Amino acid sequence: MIDSGLTMHGWVADLMPICRSLSGDGVRETLKYFGALQPSLEIKEVPTGTTVADWIVPKEWRIREAYVETIEGLRVIDFAESNLHVVGYSTPVNMTMTLAELESHLHTLPDQPSAIPYVTSYYAENWGFCLSQIQRDDLGSGPFHVVIDSELFDGNLTYGELVIPGFSSEEILISTYVCHPSMANNELSGPAVSIALSRWLESLESRHFTYRILLIPETIGSIIYISQNLENLKKNVKAGWVLTCIGDNRTYSFVPSRLGNTLSDRISKKILQDRQLDYIEYSFLDRGSDERQWCWPGVDLPIASLMRSKYAEYPEYHTSLDDLTVVTPEGLEGGLSMMMDAIELAEGNWRWASTTLGEPQLGKRGLYPTISTKKSAGIVKDLKNVLTFADGNHDVIAISDLSGVSSKVVRSVFVTLENHALVERFEQ
Amino acid sequence: MIDSGLTMHGWVADLMPICRSLSGDGVRETLKYFGALQPSLEIKEVPTGTTVADWIVPKEWRIREAYVETIEGLRVIDFAESNLHVVGYSTPVNMTMTLAELESHLHTLPDQPSAIPYVTSYYAENWGFCLSQIQRDDLGSGPFHVVIDSELFDGNLTYGELVIPGFSSEEILISTYVCHPSMANNELSGPAVSIALSRWLESLESRHFTYRILLIPETIGSIIYISQNLENLKKNVKAGWVLTCIGDNRTYSFVPSRLGNTLSDRISKKILQDRQLDYIEYSFLDRGSDERQWCWPGVDLPIASLMRSKYAEYPEYHTSLDDLTVVTPEGLEGGLSMMMDAIELAEGNWRWASTTLGEPQLGKRGLYPTISTKKSAGIVKDLKNVLTFADGNHDVIAISDLSGVSSKVVRSVFVTLENHALVERFEQ
Amino acid sequence: MIDSGLTMHGWVADLMPICRSLSGDGVRETLKYFGALQPSLEIKEVPTGTTVADWIVPKEWRIREAYVETIEGLRVIDFAESNLHVVGYSTPVNMTMTLAELESHLHTLPDQPSAIPYVTSYYAENWGFCLSQIQRDDLGSGPFHVVIDSELFDGNLTYGELVIPGFSSEEILISTYVCHPSMANNELSGPAVSIALSRWLESLESRHFTYRILLIPETIGSIIYISQNLENLKKNVKAGWVLTCIGDNRTYSFVPSRLGNTLSDRISKKILQDRQLDYIEYSFLDRGSDERQWCWPGVDLPIASLMRSKYAEYPEYHTSLDDLTVVTPEGLEGGLSMMMDAIELAEGNWRWASTTLGEPQLGKRGLYPTISTKKSAGIVKDLKNVLTFADGNHDVIAISDLSGVSSKVVRSVFVTLENHALVERFEQ
Repeated sequence: MIDSGLTMHGWVADLMPICRSLSGDGVRETLKYFGALQPSLEIKEVPTGTTVADWIVPKEWRIREAYVETIEGLRVIDFAESNLHVVGYSTPVNMTMTLAELESHLHTLPDQPSAIPYVTSYYAENWGFCLSQIQRDDLGSGPFHVVIDSELFDGNLTYGELVIPGFSSEEILISTYVCHPSMANNELSGPAVSIALSRWLESLESRHFTYRILLIPETIGSIIYISQNLENLKKNVKAGWVLTCIGDNRTYSFVPSRLGNTLSDRISKKILQDRQLDYIEYSFLDRGSDERQWCWPGVDLPIASLMRSKYAEYPEYHTSLDDLTVVTPEGLEGGLSMMMDAIELAEGNWRWASTTLGEPQLGKRGLYPTISTKKSAGIVKDLKNVLTFADGNHDVIAISDLSGVSSKVVRSVFVTLENHALVERFEQ
Repeated sequence: MIDSGLTMHGWVADLMPICRSLSGDGVRETLKYFGALQPSLEIKEVPTGTTVADWIVPKEWRIREAYVETIEGLRVIDFAESNLHVVGYSTPVNMTMTLAELESHLHTLPDQPSAIPYVTSYYAENWGFCLSQIQRDDLGSGPFHVVIDSELFDGNLTYGELVIPGFSSEEILISTYVCHPSMANNELSGPAVSIALSRWLESLESRHFTYRILLIPETIGSIIYISQNLENLKKNVKAGWVLTCIGDNRTYSFVPSRLGNTLSDRISKKILQDRQLDYIEYSFLDRGSDERQWCWPGVDLPIASLMRSKYAEYPEYHTSLDDLTVVTPEGLEGGLSMMMDAIELAEGNWRWASTTLGEPQLGKRGLYPTISTKKSAGIVKDLKNVLTFADGNHDVIAISDLSGVSSKVVRSVFVTLENHALVERFEQ
Repeated sequence: MIDSGLTMHGWVADLMPICRSLSGDGVRETLKYFGALQPSLEIKEVPTGTTVADWIVPKEWRIREAYVETIEGLRVIDFAESNLHVVGYSTPVNMTMTLAELESHLHTLPDQPSAIPYVTSYYAENWGFCLSQIQRDDLGSGPFHVVIDSELFDGNLTYGELVIPGFSSEEILISTYVCHPSMANNELSGPAVSIALSRWLESLESRHFTYRILLIPETIGSIIYISQNLENLKKNVKAGWVLTCIGDNRTYSFVPSRLGNTLSDRISKKILQDRQLDYIEYSFLDRGSDERQWCWPGVDLPIASLMRSKYAEYPEYHTSLDDLTVVTPEGLEGGLSMMMDAIELAEGNWRWASTTLGEPQLGKRGLYPTISTKKSAGIVKDLKNVLTFADGNHDVIAISDLSGVSSKVVRSVFVTLENHALVERFEQ
């Protein structure tokens, strides 16, 4: 079962208006929506004030309305029009002030005059409004009545966790976030593709790996999860990916793990190379999401990032322009397909060993032309090149590298050869 | 004693007309000829039906005559004119047929209209004729009387083995094949250079290595040899080469072993670099002869290939055009000389260690100018650069790489230094 | 305390006229001068005839005067004008001879007609005069009265040794030479920068390493030192440099240790890269000073060379043109500054480990902006990139390589982080 790009795009559209933040009902509502699509999704809550590593779980944030209006009662900025208009975690305000007083609480992007920027202040109490430069230029001179009807209170931080068991207790970890308000690529594409991936995984006949999928608020969510689950994570997780910005249909991108030498790195590069498309390989220095925590020294999980246009690298990033035209059905479908490739390769990345001493006689098994002329070519050549590296030491990725044959063809060649008892598989 | 290119070219000319195949009297006659040149050559036979790894030794093939003639008795294709005219291992035929019936049994090379292709069908019973496209266009419309007076019978597969003992039981393996009919470079150049090499080896005062030279039918020959001698091969063989296509005077070529990291690979690259000639370094993916078996996973012998124009890469390959004009005295002499370089380097690839603590005083030994001016140069510089890497860890090849001095000069420098007791040698 | 370029240039000017050689009073006078600047400098003497490794300590050389004069008593070559005029270690001469007889004892540089070459004959008894080609062309036809009033006698070879203790018995070795007559860059720049470096080292509040600075005659001096101190050297020396040709203000140069893989090599490359200046990285094949002995197989100390214009690579090298215009205050200051960088990096090249599980909350420590907008940059980005590699396995140099942050900034970032208890340091 593979959800179509249109289906995923529908989910993104449904969730777009919700005001998510680091905590609060917007996150709960989002997780409830995904729970309807994937009943195995469990909702977890962690109370305000809990110490997690170097951090403390912050207060919960609730916002009812927020606006700036002229003395005449004309609302010139209104949270009801876009939840990006308010700085995330703004403290309550209700006062009349001059433009000069309001000024330092206004955020615009002069270089992108039609975009509302996305701004937060989670860990220091503050308030503010975000607006387009065009809107800013039209504000008038005030005075203004400024209202933010919000509260910060002892509550909970909410996240979702989903486990799809496999034969093995070895795990593949998928991490995505649910803490941004109305943005499509740098928020909803990640959970949408993750949920579709989980539905496809459940529909498979069998799985070698157990899959753990986390829908968490960025940074504090992964730090919570690490502080509560480090031992199991280090013991079980063999590969994994952060999924974000995976729904536009521009380029494909890859950010390696901290030292770039894990199974996730090898799989990511191999599937991108196999596709023979251009893609961008970034450095870990370009990181920016939860791989910062998963790859932290001492945590050191094998987590890479596979994306379409990387965060902070496309113009609409962290603005109101990151909308339903940036994320497309084709873009989501391409992102899901890339992740399915990655998982199929992880599942099938066995080491194989030839069972014969010297080349097998392929001809008698119908695997080789019986008449020998100048050169073998095509699939026969691929088969021979793959088989000659089946020494029990090299996995499918390594054999693909050595033979120049795509990992998909390497895997299918070994299925054929195993049917003829010409190879045996070894534990990964 | 070094056989000249003209001598070797004479051997090739003598053996050119013989109809060799995977088995049969052509192979025996060829080995007998070489036995006259190298009396240590032993002839071995393995009976039809013997199981060897995944294979069974095939029936022996004998052919007396074969032709296609018109109803008027005009022979339009005749085995007596070229033994390439009959598909190797053709079953007997004696019938009259139309051109349409004959058609599927005819093999030509439309792109090389004057060439008779070389075709075999060893492991599936079949028959056929090979002819030039020019001859094909002139065949007429038949009907034709088609005769192949051949038989496939329980007999033997024949190969030659030659051992030249050295001080050590460690071996260098030379593998070449004797299973193709009248082709010069891709058949006779290999055995001719191998026999000349064996005659030179026997003429040396001493040898560190024991040399094992095999003249075998390709593929089945090496599989037989491996299945009967694997333990000794794995224990003793330290380096080795497949010799084929080593008699034309065009380029030099090198095909590495399976993982490209053996002593044979290091020697091959070093001697080719030392010569400061252009050469082509192929990939193991370009392999095509018995290194396919010697390097098979689990067999893993350190066998590379040194060639002139590589098989399947020159236009005359596997056709009647691979004749006595492709193989030349100069070409054979160059091939023999390259192999002598390889063996001299293998023999002399010691590790050396300086016996002094700090630079020795070269001047008092006449190895250094006593007046010091601006810079040392030439052989003095080479000597100092070689000696400074004599740490007992690096062999001659590594010191040549580090110092930029050719391996021949490195070896001669160490002889000089050993005469002055300035270095001592270590086991290879 | 950092001696200025002008100060060092003054020392060079003072020492320029002294006639140094492999041994003798010129060396003693030079060491006495440096002893006044650095009272810790100890003077050592080794008697003529002492066996050191493959060498014997040569006789001491004393020269009073030397000249070539015409019959009319006109001195056409005079040692009093330049101590380069006499071949080093010339035996005494007092005879009248024709130009033809004198000829083989004259050394000129036809390509540099105004330069007097520097020539020695330490280990074979000989005598000679060096002169410019211009002077040579004007000599006249003789006969000449030729006088060298020198003696070779059983005496001592003299060198200087200076130890500046640190917390650790681990040592950094600085090796420089005092055996050339009046040449500035390829003689006096090395000891001058070494003495200034020692004065700066003594002025530091604390030192991890113990510093050993040797002012020795080239080749025989390091061979003596090795033969008498090998065990301690091998046990204690963790890094070190040969200092020579470090006073001109042209390029910076680096000659690696024998295998190029020591701490000294890593430090040298890192500080040169950090400076973002062009520099020349030579090969060990370009070596030419005492690293030949320090890196000898079996000695294998981690010694590299940091220079300005490398010996044998600048036109004035080993001639009378290597004078006080080649060595400049700026050049000496740049050389000293480069060596201070190297030592600061050696001292601070700790491994560091993060103390938090996941990223620390930088904001609450004032290390991070509390408002999150598009991208972090500048020092915040450097801090995060440095900290993410603090895994206890990578030293400062490795973290600089991984993060792209200069080693100076890496070190200062870790000081900041240590003040916040966010990292702990590990033994180097």
